[in-house]
Amino acid sequence: MGFRESDFIGWITAGMAGAVPLGPGDDAAVLADGTVLALDAVTEGVHFVSGTAPALVARKALGRPLSDLCAMGALPQQVLVAALLPPGCDGPALAQAFNSQARAFGVAIIGGDTKCTAPGALAFAVTAVGRCPSGEPWRRSGGRPGDRLLVSGALGGAGLGRHLRVSPRIDVVAALRAAATEVHAAIDLSDGLGRNLALLCEASGVGAHVVAERVPIHADVAAGRDGLAAALGDGEDFELLLALAPDAAVPAGLVEIGTLTAGRELRLVRGGREGPLPALGYEHVF
Amino acid sequence: MGFRESDFIGWITAGMAGAVPLGPGDDAAVLADGTVLALDAVTEGVHFVSGTAPALVARKALGRPLSDLCAMGALPQQVLVAALLPPGCDGPALAQAFNSQARAFGVAIIGGDTKCTAPGALAFAVTAVGRCPSGEPWRRSGGRPGDRLLVSGALGGAGLGRHLRVSPRIDVVAALRAAATEVHAAIDLSDGLGRNLALLCEASGVGAHVVAERVPIHADVAAGRDGLAAALGDGEDFELLLALAPDAAVPAGLVEIGTLTAGRELRLVRGGREGPLPALGYEHVF
Repeated sequence: MGFRESDFIGWITAGMAGAVPLGPGDDAAVLADGTVLALDAVTEGVHFVSGTAPALVARKALGRPLSDLCAMGALPQQVLVAALLPPGCDGPALAQAFNSQARAFGVAIIGGDTKCTAPGALAFAVTAVGRCPSGEPWRRSGGRPGDRLLVSGALGGAGLGRHLRVSPRIDVVAALRAAATEVHAAIDLSDGLGRNLALLCEASGVGAHVVAERVPIHADVAAGRDGLAAALGDGEDFELLLALAPDAAVPAGLVEIGTLTAGRELRLVRGGREGPLPALGYEHVF
Repeated sequence: MGFRESDFIGWITAGMAGAVPLGPGDDAAVLADGTVLALDAVTEGVHFVSGTAPALVARKALGRPLSDLCAMGALPQQVLVAALLPPGCDGPALAQAFNSQARAFGVAIIGGDTKCTAPGALAFAVTAVGRCPSGEPWRRSGGRPGDRLLVSGALGGAGLGRHLRVSPRIDVVAALRAAATEVHAAIDLSDGLGRNLALLCEASGVGAHVVAERVPIHADVAAGRDGLAAALGDGEDFELLLALAPDAAVPAGLVEIGTLTAGRELRLVRGGREGPLPALGYEHVF
């Protein structure tokens, strides 16, 4: 009786498409008035180990839904925080860490919920609220054949501590919006480049052609590991994957890794040889 | 090193007042564009026992933030649902229960998050999204001396199973908005009449005068229990407490239990004798 994350999402949202301009199936939902909303939860023992410093817990819990907003091209403005607190937790330190980290990310905490979970694990759910400063939200489904495929930074190795220190790329969204760059599609790399590229291509009805040597590999990828496999397979990252119009202006810091194609296949060129892109990446299976 | 729920909320939101028209301290937050947002979480072992039917879990998880919107005089439109699912849980039944219950409450599920919590407890966080159909949100702080104090239904005894079957009073909000009734202040009774009345009066800078014999007692209050103590102390209810202008039209079904007063004291008249209102009700203490 196992099921996948995508199964659960399909069941719970069955028949509910069309309620808002952009509902289930993208990184965040978009209301008729342009408000962009994302909800994400983290729990001790799964997303961070017991004893993790409050500052890092707050950074991860707030960062995830903020990254979802970034993937829509929205600038975050506010958050609501639900805290499930077991007895004996350091409430003052956790509250102050969320307050400080929210300020650092430039968002106000405007509401939420505080509960005792005796004897459960420490957990937080955060709703991020934002708006697109100009233009349309960046949907997963807007990619077109011929689009340039870019990533916002080096990938891989986020599972070993760095996942608690990554930052949502609010700066990248601001730069692209300021430059009025024509972004056709976007997604964040929280499940790894392999899976997130597949999701973007599936939603857009296109394929992709990726050049292995162009994929930037993070210095955190352990020596001896295949850097490309790490980039494709490691999630827990907040870098963005973007599909840009062929003639779009590209702000500094973005790295072009390939193109979108009319064929539906995901292809990889490595060492001059072309083959299928390995289906790496992360999905919860229950 | 114990602390109270209100301490935690104070720490986490310190210095963040003014970010939106209505932020921390009321039942829900109100954005500049009028969108009303509430986030609430429930967890197995605290809000429902292990083995509770999926339909009842969904009803409670969705009902709580929807009730928070009702307390603002907002009509719910959408929800986002974060599911923390332990291995072996009945994912299909839970997803279908949320889908059905959302339809029953008249809201669309437009997003959320699905996570494995191995080996944690089943938990859900729900963000409710709505708008006020006309007029201003009903703040806790708008009560004035001389206002009529009303409740939307019979109180007490919600802890023994009924708490899984109560419904957010969307119907009461719709009736009051349709009648253009002048509601000065409102709160839901999720922490019990005693505590929620104290919160409303504190926010409004007023006192209250309650007539014990007028407080409607629910038939679920166990035989032998003091009905008034149950009404004041039992939470987990979705009935609304409303402060109405003295000459406001009162739709059918609302029960007047007293008045707001200029003095800050909470007073109770019972059996012809007046005294302080007992400080009953619920607050999480850690």
